[in-house]
This record gives sequence, structure tokens and C-alpha cells, in this order.
Amino acid sequence: MRKIRIIGGVQTLYVDVGHARYPIDIGPGLLGDRELLAARVAGRDLLVVSDVTVAPLYLQRLHLALAGRRIGDCVLADGEQHKTLQAAALVFDALVRQKLNRDATVVALGGGVVGDIAGFAAACYQRGISCVQVPTTLLAQVDSSVGGKTGVNHPGGKNLIGAFHQPAAVIADTDTLATLPDRELRAGLAEVIKYGCVADAELFAWLEHNVHSILARDPGALCHAIARSCEIKAAVVGRDEREANVRAILNFGHSFGHAIEAATAYQRHLHGEAVAIGMLIATDLSVRLGMIEPSVLSRVRSLLVKAGLPTEAPRIGADAARALMRMDKKVAAGRLRLVLLESIGAAAVGGDYADAPFEKVLAEYFG
Amino acid sequence: MRKIRIIGGVQTLYVDVGHARYPIDIGPGLLGDRELLAARVAGRDLLVVSDVTVAPLYLQRLHLALAGRRIGDCVLADGEQHKTLQAAALVFDALVRQKLNRDATVVALGGGVVGDIAGFAAACYQRGISCVQVPTTLLAQVDSSVGGKTGVNHPGGKNLIGAFHQPAAVIADTDTLATLPDRELRAGLAEVIKYGCVADAELFAWLEHNVHSILARDPGALCHAIARSCEIKAAVVGRDEREANVRAILNFGHSFGHAIEAATAYQRHLHGEAVAIGMLIATDLSVRLGMIEPSVLSRVRSLLVKAGLPTEAPRIGADAARALMRMDKKVAAGRLRLVLLESIGAAAVGGDYADAPFEKVLAEYFG
Repeated sequence: MRKIRIIGGVQTLYVDVGHARYPIDIGPGLLGDRELLAARVAGRDLLVVSDVTVAPLYLQRLHLALAGRRIGDCVLADGEQHKTLQAAALVFDALVRQKLNRDATVVALGGGVVGDIAGFAAACYQRGISCVQVPTTLLAQVDSSVGGKTGVNHPGGKNLIGAFHQPAAVIADTDTLATLPDRELRAGLAEVIKYGCVADAELFAWLEHNVHSILARDPGALCHAIARSCEIKAAVVGRDEREANVRAILNFGHSFGHAIEAATAYQRHLHGEAVAIGMLIATDLSVRLGMIEPSVLSRVRSLLVKAGLPTEAPRIGADAARALMRMDKKVAAGRLRLVLLESIGAAAVGGDYADAPFEKVLAEYFG
Repeated sequence: MRKIRIIGGVQTLYVDVGHARYPIDIGPGLLGDRELLAARVAGRDLLVVSDVTVAPLYLQRLHLALAGRRIGDCVLADGEQHKTLQAAALVFDALVRQKLNRDATVVALGGGVVGDIAGFAAACYQRGISCVQVPTTLLAQVDSSVGGKTGVNHPGGKNLIGAFHQPAAVIADTDTLATLPDRELRAGLAEVIKYGCVADAELFAWLEHNVHSILARDPGALCHAIARSCEIKAAVVGRDEREANVRAILNFGHSFGHAIEAATAYQRHLHGEAVAIGMLIATDLSVRLGMIEPSVLSRVRSLLVKAGLPTEAPRIGADAARALMRMDKKVAAGRLRLVLLESIGAAAVGGDYADAPFEKVLAEYFG
């Protein structure tokens, strides 16, 4: 499914999704690596999409490394609350203004919000042009930039408008994490913990011992966490691009998490923070359903706490939480499908769980 | 590639696009055919998208035939100038308001504009839900409802924002053509003539002798024209869903036509009328390039005239026309790809044509 090539600290993984294959490069200094960018970014005409936080830090570096191309910029507002159809419309406007054709490439320089908007705009512009993801947050590097899910939020729910559009390449420059606020680093770490929970007991155990190195931004620890996360995601996406089945395990903690984000209008919690709380609730539910020992819940809780992640859901009431969860995309035939733990490193997906324990955790965490 | 089944005046064709297969039903009375609709429209939850012209005529009939489902409506403004991202946003709002999930179906009841907007919204909502096309214009029945191209216009160009999203089914009730204004009937006929030009000399010859029967809305003539057009489109789309190659011949007359529509802000000409003028210009260019005899141009011109279609382009100047054509999606590596005739019934696509004759027709028709 994938191969790893390591040259001078740069790791390259490949994602295979049947009709497409694309590389993920992980390492320091990639934003300034003209040779790598020449190989990864096709076409003469580019539109770089970024946001007001990231553009001042890295846009010039990218322009220099891409010298010789015709490059337009589209700098968006920063933040999940700006991940809207209106933001995608700004990207369309920029693409049209630059008179870009089907052989142009969109380069998404930023976190998950920029990557999702830019990827969605690339998916729709002229019914699909190339997009290269250059994620600059830990969350985007380990999760959202890989796998082809793109989209924007609707006032009625998260990611309700979107497309599957695999990137042409993902370039994760670990140097960009130097400027990432602590809180965002921790939020990204939540997704790394997720990979450990659902797919890799060894990664989970490694995190239990090395979470402080990651928080201290040790380059080796960061690289290991990102590469292993991307490897798991690449393997899962390669098996199941459209999440009919396997891919759904990557939504561990997300159904509860999305409800938490929506309940607070995407203002109180970062996505990773909401997912952290969601993972705790899903793990608790797995214990109540008799799928795992209570000790697993303790390990998950204590790793989340060590990572500096929140573990308290907003007290919006069980009814409100249930209603928000039912707006999630993972409802099939009227039944909310949940990802539950079978052990550290293994998850199951389905709508076939007892209602009473589900109601119990809703009451306990949201009531 | 396809099979045709004829039961009591209803013709059923199938479109195969590799990953999907869907039926096209053509015949009278289909909108009231509960059995057919039960077979073709999946799911309990439906959103019917229509427009202010078509909804008063046929929405109730469709509701009756779909009795027992949970049906929401979204009635849009009528007209190409309303085929915008804002219209798609209204459909998203309706889908969210109705709290529809991934197993819901969008039913597009109307002409090409409704089909394109509803299809695009279905493609993007929750990254893709089912869409059944119920075209009520000749243009939509022979062309836009089949093949999976969906999208909306941008002020900078036609169909610049869109998705490939194959319908789950196409239901072409020929009774709906009874209320179609003459001008729209003729505009739809332009696309039928196109199929004759690029793929079927026999259809072209049949049209030369039967165009009056179509304009008189003879049911048999209409059915033959629609079924043969869909058959050609199904065969072409089946061979090449994303128009890298074969599918592009269906764009005959469209590069010039899109420029004509854009030049007059989509106000002066219906799409089919613009395509008619575009076909004439493309045929003229094919003559000038020595690909066909001048007699072919006479046949095309005289069929268009018999069909009551316009043959005069707006006098916007060659430079403006060229600039508008270059905004079209069919520019590759800086070169505008055109569909040209090799004979009645055969077309070629490419960017490898002499510039002087191209400039000559621009000057002659737009100068």
C-alpha cells in the first residue's frame, strides 16, 4: 500500500487510492526545498491559498522556492468559523480573476481550515483541478491534509458541504511547527493519540512515555509522531477512500466531538480539543458496553491529561447533544453509527449498541 | 454499453460509467407512474428541487406519485442567470433545514438549470448524496440530465464551479414538453442536431426530413429524437466519463456558444440558441480548414434555419470573443481545444488547427 523512503531526515510515504497515488513528504526545511517543490507541484499557474496568520510567516518562503511560476495568492481569514461556503467563493473568485485553467494547481498553505477550503475549491473549480497540501499545523500534518476529504461548514453542521478530492501531494515541513501556539500543538496531538487508540497500541504506549518530548517540540519525536500517523492514515485511506467501512474508525471521538464544537459554535474548542473530549466519552461508552476494561479508560484519560487536553464537555444537556450528533454525517437508516474501542489499538464501527449506556454517557458528560 | 427495453411506449436505456450504472426512462406519463418512481427513487427522505415556472405545473403530480415519502421542496428562481453558487447555497440550506442525511435523495424537477444546481448540491452535500434527474425541457432530456456534469456559473464564466456526479436515475416524461415554450423546444432541438452532426449522419438526415414534426410536438418524433440523443450521449459518457477525450466531441459548438452566452450576460440567448450559432461557426471553421466540403456548411445552416434557430452571433468584436473563449474550461497548455467536423456524423477534437482561419471566423461572426 505504501513505501517509506528516508533521505536526509525527510520521510516520504505514498498513499494509494486505486485511481490515484500521491506522496507525503515529512521533514524539516521542505518549504524552501526548490527541488522537492519542482517535483511535487505541477503546472505553470498556481494559486496559493493561505490565511492571515500563516501567510506572513511562510508565504514568501514558498514564493521564493517556487520562483519561475505564475503565482497568485488568496489570503483568507483565520479560524474554523471562517470555514464557510463564502470563503470557498473567495477562492473561486481568485481562480477566475487569475484566469486559471484546468492545468493550474492550488497550493494550500496553512492549517486544516485552509486545507479543507482550498481542497474543496480545487475539487469544484472547473469540476476539479490539482491541489497540493502544505500543512503548517500538527493537526493538518497528521490528519486533514491526507486522505482527500475536503469541505466547508454550514451553520447547521460541520463539513456538511464538501467533496472527496485527493491531493496531488502533501508536503509537511516540520519547521513550520516552531511557530505553532502550544494550544494548537496539543490539539494536533489529540489526533495522534487517536491513531494510537484505534490502530496502534505501540504508538499509544510510545506516546505515554514521550508526550513531553512532543510538547517540547523535539524534532525527532515530532517526526516520528507525524510519520507514524500519516502511515496509519495512508493505510486506512488506501483500503477505503470513501469510508464505507474501514475509514470510519478514524472518526473515533468525532461524533461526540462535532457535537461539542457545534454546541459552542466552533468558538470554545479547537477541533482536536473537541475530539479529545469525544474520545474520552467514546472510551467511557465502550467500557459501559463491556467492550473494554475500565483500566483502558484510565490510560486514555491520563494520556489526554498529560497532553494538556481538555476532558470536560460543555454542559448543554443530553437532548441538545443527541440532536447535534444526529445532524452528523454518520447517521445511516436513522441510526447513529459510533466508533468504539475493542482495546488500545483496535476499534469497531457500528450502530448496533445498547441505547441505555449511550444515554448514560450523554447525561453524564453533557447533562 | 447499454440496453434498450421498450414497454408500452416507455423506453429505458442504461448508462454505464464503470463505477456506476443508471437507467434513463423516456416516455409519456412517467411523472404520475408510482411504480416507476418507487423503483427509481431510493430513500425515505427526499428534497425536490424545482423552479418557479415548473413547480406550479408538475410539483403536485410528483408529490402524489411519491406519496408516503418525507418530501421537502426547494423552489428556485428560473433562468440561467440564477444558476449561481448562491442558488446552490439555497439547496444546501433546504437540505440542512430538513436535517437530511446521507441516505436522502435530491430530485431535480425542471430544466437544465435546476438539474445542474440540484445535481451540484447533491454532489457536495455530505460529500455526495443520491440525485434523480426529472428533466422537463427538451434540452435537459437530451443532454444536461444525462452524464453527471453538474455545476453553477461564476460571473467570470459558465459552469466554472461544479462536480462530476452521476444521477441515480433519469426520468424523462415527454408529457412535460407540452407546456414548453416554442423557443425552448427549438433550443433543445439544437442539441439533438448536435448529436447528428458529431455522431450520427442518419439522425441528421432524419432531422432534415422531420424537424417540422418535432416543432409540431408529434409524440413519436419527440420520443425518437430524445431516445436516440440519450443513446448517443450514454454511449459517449460510458466510454469517457471525464471527457479527457471522447466525451469532448459533445462540446461541438459549445466553445463559441459559451462565449456568445457570456458576451450577452446569459440574457440574450438560450443555451441551445448559442450552441446553434456556435455549431455554425465551428462548421464554417471546419470548411476553412479544408476538413469538409462547403456543402456540409449549407446543410447545417439550413437545418438550423428550419429548426427556427438563430445563426447570427452578437457583434462583440473578435478580441472580446477570443478572450471569452479562452476563459472556457477547454484550454490545455495555453491552447484552446475545439471540436471540428470531419463529416456529418463525425467530429475531431484538438488544439492543432491553423490560427488564420480561426481568426477569420472570429472576425466574420463577431467582428
